[in-house]
Formats: sequence, C-alpha cells, structure tokens
Amino acid sequence: MNILVINSGSSSIKYQLIKMPEETVAASGLVERIGLEGSLLHYKAGETKLTKEINIPNHETGLKQITQFLMDKEVGVVEDEKHIQVVGHRVVHGGKSFSKTVEVTEDVKAKIRNLFPLAPLHNPHNLRGIEVAESVFPEAKQVVVFDTAYFQTMPQKAYQYAIPKKFLEDHDVRAYGFHGTSHKYVSEKAIEYLNEKGLPSEKIISVHLGNGCSITAIKNGKAIDHSLGMGPANGLIMGTRAGDIDQSVIFYLIDKLGYTAEEVNNILLKESGMLGLTGYSDMRDIEERSAEGDEDCRLALYINGYKIKKYIGSYIAAMNGVDAVIFTAGIGENSSVIRKIALEDMEYLGLHLDHRKNDVRGKTIRPINSPDAEKQILIVPTNEELEIAKQSYALVN
Amino acid sequence: MNILVINSGSSSIKYQLIKMPEETVAASGLVERIGLEGSLLHYKAGETKLTKEINIPNHETGLKQITQFLMDKEVGVVEDEKHIQVVGHRVVHGGKSFSKTVEVTEDVKAKIRNLFPLAPLHNPHNLRGIEVAESVFPEAKQVVVFDTAYFQTMPQKAYQYAIPKKFLEDHDVRAYGFHGTSHKYVSEKAIEYLNEKGLPSEKIISVHLGNGCSITAIKNGKAIDHSLGMGPANGLIMGTRAGDIDQSVIFYLIDKLGYTAEEVNNILLKESGMLGLTGYSDMRDIEERSAEGDEDCRLALYINGYKIKKYIGSYIAAMNGVDAVIFTAGIGENSSVIRKIALEDMEYLGLHLDHRKNDVRGKTIRPINSPDAEKQILIVPTNEELEIAKQSYALVN
Repeated sequence: MNILVINSGSSSIKYQLIKMPEETVAASGLVERIGLEGSLLHYKAGETKLTKEINIPNHETGLKQITQFLMDKEVGVVEDEKHIQVVGHRVVHGGKSFSKTVEVTEDVKAKIRNLFPLAPLHNPHNLRGIEVAESVFPEAKQVVVFDTAYFQTMPQKAYQYAIPKKFLEDHDVRAYGFHGTSHKYVSEKAIEYLNEKGLPSEKIISVHLGNGCSITAIKNGKAIDHSLGMGPANGLIMGTRAGDIDQSVIFYLIDKLGYTAEEVNNILLKESGMLGLTGYSDMRDIEERSAEGDEDCRLALYINGYKIKKYIGSYIAAMNGVDAVIFTAGIGENSSVIRKIALEDMEYLGLHLDHRKNDVRGKTIRPINSPDAEKQILIVPTNEELEIAKQSYALVN
Repeated sequence: MNILVINSGSSSIKYQLIKMPEETVAASGLVERIGLEGSLLHYKAGETKLTKEINIPNHETGLKQITQFLMDKEVGVVEDEKHIQVVGHRVVHGGKSFSKTVEVTEDVKAKIRNLFPLAPLHNPHNLRGIEVAESVFPEAKQVVVFDTAYFQTMPQKAYQYAIPKKFLEDHDVRAYGFHGTSHKYVSEKAIEYLNEKGLPSEKIISVHLGNGCSITAIKNGKAIDHSLGMGPANGLIMGTRAGDIDQSVIFYLIDKLGYTAEEVNNILLKESGMLGLTGYSDMRDIEERSAEGDEDCRLALYINGYKIKKYIGSYIAAMNGVDAVIFTAGIGENSSVIRKIALEDMEYLGLHLDHRKNDVRGKTIRPINSPDAEKQILIVPTNEELEIAKQSYALVN
C-alpha cells in the first residue's frame, strides 16, 4: 500500500510516499515558496534528485505538481493517483478532542478548525493541506495524525496550570504537548531495543532536540509529563524560541520597555533561544564558534544543556527513577556537545555517559552510556513521516 | 545592642526589637492600614500584647508610634531612642548592585531607587521605611539587608534567560531570586545541625513555602540555582500566584480572550495559584476541604506538591546529588500534606519520608526522614527578622 505523508505549512508542503507495511520510502521532497516568487519543487526517488522552479500560486497547485512528479513516466514511482490509497496528514493541534489518529470526516475538519486559536500558525495550513488532498485524491483515505494526541495520557496534575480554573473549563487553557509523533516513534523504538536486550523499559525520558525542542517523561509506554505547553514555545531552549521564561520578564518588557504584547511574543518565538544568546540559531555554527573561543556561544551551550539536565532530573523525580534517557532529532542525534553538557555529572541519578561513544556519529539506534552503567542512554534516530505512515496504515487496515 | 528590624510595606510596617548578640526578641509587632481608615498598631513585649486603633496618616507617624511604645514607661523595653543603636531594613530588590548587606549611604539609597522598575510593589516602600527611620533615629546606624543578595552567587547559566542578550546587558533582565534572607538562615541552621551530627552538608535544597514560595539549590553554602526570577512570580505555586506559566497562555489571554497585559499580570499575581485552582488561598482551608472530599482542593494539593517534587529533582540533577532537603516557612513547616506529596515516591533519589515524623508538629529543627534513610529531610523554622538582626550586627561590629 502506498501512503502519501503530507506536512502542510504556510507556504510549503513536505511529502513522502511510503510503501507499507514494507516501510520503504519510494519518493520524498518538498514544495516551497508557495504563492511567492521563485517557488520550488524538490523531488527525490531512488537515485533521482530534482529541484525545479515552477509557478506554484497555491497549495492545490503544489500538491498537483507533486502528484505529477510521483506519476511521471520517467522519474515517477506510481502509475496513477489511484495507487495512492492513503494520504496521511500531520496536524499540529488536536486539542483535547483527539487522543489518537483518525480518518478525516466533516466533523474532524470542523474540530481542527475550532482549534485555530490554539495553533494559529499551524492548524489553518494543516487543514488546507487536507482539503487540497481531498480534491486531488478523491478516492484515497485521508488520515490525520495529531502532534498533541500522544500527550492525552498526561494526568491533570501535569497539564493543568495554576491559574483560575475557568480558563481550563471554559477555554481549554492547559498544556497539550507537541512533537508527539517523534516522541512516540523513538520511545517505542527504544522500548523495543531495551526489551531485546532484556533491559527494563518502564521509565523513559525522551529528549527531542530539533528545530523545536521538547522532553517527555514516559511511564509504561505512556506520556506522563512533557515540557511544551499550550503552544510550542516553552520548556527547553530552541533555535529561536526562549523556552521557559519568567512572566515578570514579559510584563517588564511591556510595562517598562514599551513593547506591545505581540512584539514580545515575536521576540520570544523568533529572536530568542540560541539566536538571542549568540546571534546564531544553527547549533553547528554555535558549536564551531564556541570551539574557536566565542564566549557567548560557549555560555549559550551551557545554558541550553543545563536546562535539559534539570528537566531530566525533574522527570526522574516524577517517575521515581529512569530506565533510559533517549536523544533524538537533528541536534539530539548529532550534537555530542549538548548531550555531554546535559549528561555530565549525573552519576547520582544513575546516568554515566561514555564520552567516546558520545562522540561517534551514526544513523542507527545506539547506546552512549558507559558499559557498566546502571541506566541506558540511547541515541534513537526519529522518523516522523514513517510514524505517520505506520499510524495511517494501522488505522485503515 | 538593640537592633530594630523593619519591614516596610505599602501600608504597613512590621518590626522587631532584637537584642544582639543574645538573639532575644524584646518587642515585636505591626502597624497596618497606614494612611487608611482604622489604622492599627500591634505591639508585643514579653507578656504584654496590645492592639490600638491610632490615626496613622503616613509611615513617619507609624514609626514614631512604634518608637513611643518601645519607650513607654509601662510597656516599653528601651529607655530612649539612643538605645536603639541599629535599624535593620529589609529591602526586596538589590538587583546586581548588592551581593551583601550594607550600611545606608546616599549612594545606596540612589541604587535602591534605581531598582524601582524591577520591584515596583516593594522597593519604593522599603526606601520610604529607610528615610523615615533616618529621621526618627538620626543617631542609629541604618543597615539594609537585600532579599536578592544571597543569590548573587548563582552562575550565569542559572540566571540568564534565553532571550536577546541586549536585555541582560542593557536592562539587567535576569533572574535575581527572592526570600534570600530565609533561605540563608535556614540553610545555615541546617548545615550547623548536619555538621553537629557528623552528616554531610554540601548539597542542600531549601524549600520555602510561605505566602510566597521558592526553592533554592545550595552547594557548599552558596546558592547555585533558585526558582524565582526577575520578579517574585514564577517557580512554585503560591497562594495567589501562578508560579511557572507557559508564555503561550499569557499571549492567548491577551490575543484571543481580550485581556490587557496588565489584567493578565494581575490574574497571575492575585487570582491564580491555590486561589485560582480552588477558590481558597489559605492552605489550611484547602487541606481541610480536601480532607472533606473537595476534588478541586485535592487536585490543587497534588499540582502544588508535584511541582515541588519536580524542582527537587531538577536541583538534584544540577548538583549531582543531595545531602538534605529542608522545608521552611508557614506552609513548609506546618503542611504535612504538601511535604508528603512532594516527597513520596522519591526513594530513587535517596529521599525516604518518615510519615509518622512528618505528621508531628513542632517548633524546632527536626528530621522527618526515615531513620535508615541515606539523605536527610529536615524541617527548619525560619526567622527572617533574626537573620536581618544577625547580618546587621555582624556589619556594624
């Protein structure tokens, strides 16, 4: 079965065509700059790798262009649209309505629309992707995988804020969590790996460090706590996002420094995090400059890693122990420096990093704890598209 | 030597006359409703306990009234003003200018004034108290003890926010910490106690749960991390203050629910915390109602204790261990329920609460860990006035 996985943004569509249950990627790519000058289509299938400048005025044209490449006589991978039996969509916010993957119905779309206020930067584009896919693939099954669904198992003490409870009751103000597809995928991979080795896997801490960053406490396979809240802004320090911030700072910037609330929100989302601390948002640049002696970069790495360290400690307290800490996504899989800062001097908690293993790059699941360590530290490559395909496949079969 | 300790608020002056180095309280009390209808003076000395309604239009009159009681032929404890050799003032915010207790000078007053924007609800009244004391006791030494000074040992990774660094450099936006007088007092008491017992005391976690709540990680006698930030609003859940809150919630309330930033700040400071969750801000009411089956109250206790638990875990990670966790202040010393929720199921971290000991009330320093536990859990009664007197005495001698 061919499953087209789509992640639709404001001016882009990321896609992968995945054959299930084989879990092989037949084609993948990206349409970018939709509705803008110089829109581009990237396409990769086997040895073929193409980038074309095409006029793509809207998402519908974008998806049609993708489809034409997928069916192309020379570079395509399917005969016609009917061979794409399922389209799996990533939708960021499922609110409290969705605790699992569902097939698209009018009701599902209405609920995604109702959640626009909670995810104004994501849900509208995600919904647009669904509607476009319905028109381009009228016979395919449309499936939605929510970023938030994985966290619906969190207990109320973990998701409720200590503000007047009417905000929870009347406006659904609570922590929802994000990157659920990734945390679910890597924690299940880790549990599988631990079980194979005969190691315990009841208490997992999953650290997702990518463009966005978050950390999840997973007990008996279920998320029980998580660092991101109602929006994907707080918790760990990200490329341009501040992570946790004292509210006094927000009101100081508004009251005393004359910023509007909107400006402060923008600063915290787009000008903060590693960018705000160093002038650079890409961890590779920051690590390079830190190694060259840039003091801002060095300090920023310590601020970042220290925050991860503290979250790991807090989740060990929440679970009264830990069996494995896992690192994933671009930075989590590749930045040995951040892992080192986060994990050094953690022996009291049973965590012993093997510095040599930590420095070795790789593309598969692997331990980086010292061999005689009580607790596991694993790098687990994430694959959100595959997780969406797996969940879509499971739902329609 | 007689030291008059003063804590001057917007419409109140709290005072204690302490004899040093004996550390005995000769008199204590409160002037309240200054400048309002029905202002009151409370005075206690030995067996004498008085409350008088007196017209107190301003702080100067307030302090003069206090002085008259202190020198009163019948109920007084000193002969004349000259026997009050030192006035020790609590000032909430010392910013980055003050890392220790100082004698008042024009420069010190100017710096306290410069810090008004960082502590608009406290520093103006604290400064007013100093100026009034200078006029009422022109021959006494005036000493200032800052709530923030104790935290000036925090490393930059603990106090810097991940926002554009110009805010730190140009506007001193950073975490300062509060309740320093209490954390210093109880941690030093705890270290003394531990040393007497031959127990290690390098890694202390101090949990101050009073009207405000905060937690400090103390390594080798120095604060290395703390839950309150630039203002006394974040971190642990307090009577009416939210503690840590996802910034997305703040912007949601402003953008989508139409509140002003000022209204949101007020909600987070005055209508949140235990009050927001339950309708009650007093922990005794909440515990009573929880015991009677009130579900909101029960849940609020768990949300509150769970947050403390996670902070303890994060500071254990920050210090790679812990020698003692100490609880202090009104709730910390008296609420066995909150301590139980925060500390139960923490054996992995070496913390074993003795439930029987935890349930016994007392007024002295005492352990509440199980006898065979690796790590200590202590209740340490706080005494901020005595700490101010001690620091004032040390400075002028």
